[in-house]
Amino acid sequence: MKPQKTGSKQWVIPGGHIPFGTNGKEPEFTSHDSLSILNTSGKVADIELVIYYQDREPNGPYPICVEAQRMKEVRFNDLIDPLAIALDTPYSCVLQSDVPVVVQFSRQDTRQTANAIATMMAWPVA
Amino acid sequence: MKPQKTGSKQWVIPGGHIPFGTNGKEPEFTSHDSLSILNTSGKVADIELVIYYQDREPNGPYPICVEAQRMKEVRFNDLIDPLAIALDTPYSCVLQSDVPVVVQFSRQDTRQTANAIATMMAWPVA
Amino acid sequence: MKPQKTGSKQWVIPGGHIPFGTNGKEPEFTSHDSLSILNTSGKVADIELVIYYQDREPNGPYPICVEAQRMKEVRFNDLIDPLAIALDTPYSCVLQSDVPVVVQFSRQDTRQTANAIATMMAWPVA
Amino acid sequence: MKPQKTGSKQWVIPGGHIPFGTNGKEPEFTSHDSLSILNTSGKVADIELVIYYQDREPNGPYPICVEAQRMKEVRFNDLIDPLAIALDTPYSCVLQSDVPVVVQFSRQDTRQTANAIATMMAWPVA
Repeated sequence: MKPQKTGSKQWVIPGGHIPFGTNGKEPEFTSHDSLSILNTSGKVADIELVIYYQDREPNGPYPICVEAQRMKEVRFNDLIDPLAIALDTPYSCVLQSDVPVVVQFSRQDTRQTANAIATMMAWPVA
Repeated sequence: MKPQKTGSKQWVIPGGHIPFGTNGKEPEFTSHDSLSILNTSGKVADIELVIYYQDREPNGPYPICVEAQRMKEVRFNDLIDPLAIALDTPYSCVLQSDVPVVVQFSRQDTRQTANAIATMMAWPVA
Repeated sequence: MKPQKTGSKQWVIPGGHIPFGTNGKEPEFTSHDSLSILNTSGKVADIELVIYYQDREPNGPYPICVEAQRMKEVRFNDLIDPLAIALDTPYSCVLQSDVPVVVQFSRQDTRQTANAIATMMAWPVA
Repeated sequence: MKPQKTGSKQWVIPGGHIPFGTNGKEPEFTSHDSLSILNTSGKVADIELVIYYQDREPNGPYPICVEAQRMKEVRFNDLIDPLAIALDTPYSCVLQSDVPVVVQFSRQDTRQTANAIATMMAWPVA
């Protein structure tokens, strides 16, 4: 397979909001927001996330690395450096990559006795 | 961080419909439609929503303000001026901003004993 | 409010599939696929749907009319002329309008004891 | 009806992840990821999928054929040649077609006692 160069270098997710509370076994049923990032290029993607809030300064950058010809699933719950993302708090995410990638956003919400899921493509800027 | 100018000045959500009825503690489990609006620019975003219906004149504008470098989560349930949006009634929403923003639409439906969620990017026009 | 001209004249939904079976009171909990169509223009939108299947000829057109400055929510379950859309059967939908409209696709699935929902923007072609 | 030529020849789904575990009767309640592919053109669409992982080489191609003027629903669970897609494992999918098609991605998750669903348009590249 020939390495492809597919995607965009900046993606936005306006509607982050990690649900607070979990029913079911962890970690598979832990309520979470996540990113799925695909790097079809032939070189490593060095990525930075910046997190925006309703009532305080943006925070970041959160560094992520996706190898060439690999994808990565990242739970926002696991982003703790420079600052853990608070649960049950609205946030937005801007992703910047040095090579084109493709990004999907998903949520799992198990606050009640059966889980709920949602997904969408992030919004490509440039 | 240098302020960025990211997004579009007009966004459309055709399929609004606030579910009628709630199971669970309020306000976190209240059935609702919501907008998440990100303003990465260096100035305040003055935004107006217009709501379209199946069988009456469009209503609005509903003013919303998002500070520079901030996001805002807005529940349609809370829009009451000039007129509360009726529950269990289909509507569409057109959002107009004076600076570029990025907009996501979400729904939480707790009419039955476990919640359901859905989300998508709004549709950028201009 | 000045009438706006917003949207696209052709939209596609590849993944139609009306869930078969309902738990809860009808019609609000009936399992269904639906379209939400917004017409912000100053004239009536004359719309036609064509339905594609896995193993037979496309069917249609199904006519829909959306008044000027109005939206319309249409359940696929209610499309019966020229032919009712079978439940539990994959289909795709191509929508053609004579004025620009904006289209969202939604599903409600109540086959099990708590409902599930999903939504997305349809795909604009032209 | 005149055959139309609608869509894109390459589509990406970054966030594949087949849920592991099922509640309810199979196959209708089997947890799964799926693609819905619409071919409105007048000729057969010869399609190939390549699957990307977090920690090993991409796999494929998985061949799919969609007849002229037909759609096809494909469960990722059923893709077994050249290699079955593991359950509960993040993956991305790149779809390449020789004629323009339109592609939607869906998930059904019945790991808990009521099902959950999510859907989105795949991301068109070229």
